[in-house]
Amino acid sequence: MLTRKQYAEMRDRTLQFLQKAGIVLTPEEQEAVEVADFGLENLEVEGLQLITYVNTDRYCAKELVLFPRQTCPEHLHPDVNGEEGKQETFRCRYGTVYLYVEGPASPEIQSVIPEGKEACYTVRHEFVLKPGEQYTIPPHTKHWFQASEEGTIVSEFSSTNRDEYDIFTDPAIKRIPVIGE
Amino acid sequence: MLTRKQYAEMRDRTLQFLQKAGIVLTPEEQEAVEVADFGLENLEVEGLQLITYVNTDRYCAKELVLFPRQTCPEHLHPDVNGEEGKQETFRCRYGTVYLYVEGPASPEIQSVIPEGKEACYTVRHEFVLKPGEQYTIPPHTKHWFQASEEGTIVSEFSSTNRDEYDIFTDPAIKRIPVIGE
Repeated sequence: MLTRKQYAEMRDRTLQFLQKAGIVLTPEEQEAVEVADFGLENLEVEGLQLITYVNTDRYCAKELVLFPRQTCPEHLHPDVNGEEGKQETFRCRYGTVYLYVEGPASPEIQSVIPEGKEACYTVRHEFVLKPGEQYTIPPHTKHWFQASEEGTIVSEFSSTNRDEYDIFTDPAIKRIPVIGE
Repeated sequence: MLTRKQYAEMRDRTLQFLQKAGIVLTPEEQEAVEVADFGLENLEVEGLQLITYVNTDRYCAKELVLFPRQTCPEHLHPDVNGEEGKQETFRCRYGTVYLYVEGPASPEIQSVIPEGKEACYTVRHEFVLKPGEQYTIPPHTKHWFQASEEGTIVSEFSSTNRDEYDIFTDPAIKRIPVIGE
């Protein structure tokens, strides 16, 4: 669980990062930045900051922020109550993001797998996305992603968000404790 | 119908505008900028430039660019083949956009209605969106929008795009002739 101080610090870093990329948030959105440590208490290595712009019963749009080498752990979006799992498009806005999905393992990958967590990062089919580049991840597809040395901002366009149903490869992740204020 | 020269000119202006706002497109996207004059041949007054990032059978994301005082004519998104009409969220990224939807007419509006077209702009419930501000338009709801004197960039997040079914108030608009190369 993040402390209030940790949260405030990460939120401020996130806001500075977005500002550098010219992405403007309302004061309410600035207060509502989410910081996810996935219950692993190693936020700088495995963690994610995000702002949800809109999430209706039809579509969702977010901004994802990852600091240098920060990693969003491997997971997939299952069907929920008979509805097809979440489909999502990642569009890089700033920096570089290394994205991994199911498919033939790339001979060499750019990411640094978090120490001792090799078994929790099983898909190694790499896409390198720079600003303006995007990739659409089909439902039920394992994926994970890591920021380059400079960090990254990624716009996520998707079907309805139901992240509380996500299935993570790492058994230490029980749920997503997304921390807002 | 736009000439090739008109198209190239508007595309270049669009790219310059996006660049100013720090929005990066791939070379392929730069070639695929769409310029819509709605068949009215008065593009600077009634027209719209856009880039579609993604349009799947579940969601869609675009960037809309309007030059100073350029107006997207009033229209609505009907149900299509039994599927609920398009729901869309407009998020202002740059400049100011004046958005009009169904509801009580605002006592005074910021937009300048295109000359002689008063009858084609029937909804006057105004929202003024500045960077970071957004509004979600329900299906089947008439709406139109105009850029302020400085122009605007608007991110559109929505359900699947089927703009060829849009219903315009202006009877002179028969279809959307969106011109790419």
